[in-house]
Amino acid sequence: MTHIAAVTVLGTGVLGSQIAYQTAYSGLNVDAYDINEKALTTAKKRFTRLAATYKEQIKGAAEGKADAALKRITLQLDLERAVAEADLVIEAIPEIIELKRDTYSKIGHLAPQKTIFATNTSTLLPSDLMESTGRPERFLALHFANQIWIHNTAEVMGTSKTDPDVYRTIVDFASKIGMVPIELKKEHPRYVLNSLLTPWLDNALGLLADGVAEPETVDKTWRIATGAPMGPFQILDMVGLNTVYNIDAAGNEEQHRLARFLKENYIDKGKLGADSGEGFYSYASE
Amino acid sequence: MTHIAAVTVLGTGVLGSQIAYQTAYSGLNVDAYDINEKALTTAKKRFTRLAATYKEQIKGAAEGKADAALKRITLQLDLERAVAEADLVIEAIPEIIELKRDTYSKIGHLAPQKTIFATNTSTLLPSDLMESTGRPERFLALHFANQIWIHNTAEVMGTSKTDPDVYRTIVDFASKIGMVPIELKKEHPRYVLNSLLTPWLDNALGLLADGVAEPETVDKTWRIATGAPMGPFQILDMVGLNTVYNIDAAGNEEQHRLARFLKENYIDKGKLGADSGEGFYSYASE
Repeated sequence: MTHIAAVTVLGTGVLGSQIAYQTAYSGLNVDAYDINEKALTTAKKRFTRLAATYKEQIKGAAEGKADAALKRITLQLDLERAVAEADLVIEAIPEIIELKRDTYSKIGHLAPQKTIFATNTSTLLPSDLMESTGRPERFLALHFANQIWIHNTAEVMGTSKTDPDVYRTIVDFASKIGMVPIELKKEHPRYVLNSLLTPWLDNALGLLADGVAEPETVDKTWRIATGAPMGPFQILDMVGLNTVYNIDAAGNEEQHRLARFLKENYIDKGKLGADSGEGFYSYASE
Repeated sequence: MTHIAAVTVLGTGVLGSQIAYQTAYSGLNVDAYDINEKALTTAKKRFTRLAATYKEQIKGAAEGKADAALKRITLQLDLERAVAEADLVIEAIPEIIELKRDTYSKIGHLAPQKTIFATNTSTLLPSDLMESTGRPERFLALHFANQIWIHNTAEVMGTSKTDPDVYRTIVDFASKIGMVPIELKKEHPRYVLNSLLTPWLDNALGLLADGVAEPETVDKTWRIATGAPMGPFQILDMVGLNTVYNIDAAGNEEQHRLARFLKENYIDKGKLGADSGEGFYSYASE
């Protein structure tokens, strides 16, 4: 297995910043790259906020560990410099296939031969991107969930060309940064989690959109039947209605119908989920 | 609302016996009907076993309450006698539409006008049966889950002809016998629970059948993402593989494929779920 010491994260959006911070929090040095000063200013704020969140929510983080993580992150505007020393590049840039391909094509030339590339893509397959990397055997998907410090799954999904040693290296890396590696044995659209979660949420939404049952009714049915603490509408509120809207809006005809239902009855009324104070349920403000 | 004092349960199979026992346990008198002596002998054993289970698992049941319930159950072989005094007949006979229609047609003549009929059908819609009752306004579905004393949902689903007062009566009755009433506002195939549960289990099975991920992998992904104590394969083991096989075998093409996969890889090898000692997981024998 390749030893991973230096990690570069491309993209400092919601997920990218969490991945960079969590990696730094685990003791590794991280280069966090984004395309302009403005993005990096936002990134800096995100990292500071993440440090505060970790201090609040993670035992031991307040005793210097959360702040030390901040010092291990180097902001980068220069792509060449950002990847020059990387053992691993984790790509978390927008879900636009041409943008991703272009980026891989660039770093394929800029990064040393040893560097492993991992995409955090949610909607694409790694095989859609592998040829652009110029090193498909050192390329795979490593998919994180939002609120990485709580939902600490890291789905590892290679292509038919991924070197098994690279795959093991990334599984090992995921463990080292505090994730539970979820090993997919072959490519599958939407990985494990979203293969289960999306249709489950859609089916629940369908019951509401069709006037069959209220969110409270659906949720308590699920809780009693499976012993879970939360039903689908509680999860929808937690995930955020916009996220589910975006998935459904890009889906099949039934999903388009559900996306419209979500938009008209909730999103357009400012009901975006728990973070907005209201979604299917109301949340008392702090 | 109609006052429900005398309840008759038709059919003393797994669910029927649980419904009858739970109703009796809640203090009501129950006539438990089945078609022959052999069925009633089995029923008697089921009730005795249920009393033992309640004593073990339910606080207070051992202090006379579980045994008192047994005394409130009258076994019946004569359909006319079984329904003569009933305020409510709960039908839990096999899922064969002609058998159910024939039964409703008979009790439609035998039962007093006041009697409400409720079907526990899992696979049919109440509107498929309502005309046979001769009293569609006093007919609806009341659907229980296996292990009624733990999974205490009672889905209440009327047809377009169900009298709202009858619907409220049955919601109230469900609460009185310790159930959480799940109110469906209109007819929907497979109610709330199975609308969510079946595709969720099928999607998980698909990941395994397609060689994407192992049960342990899928389950831990779900647990971490949703905070649930059990993932889909743990639930499959709990529900029993035969139950899911029967649902999938009666389903669409993809479900047929999953049914075959279940049969060949698990059921034919005696791996039926937790009760058989092995399913997707192994269970230490007691």
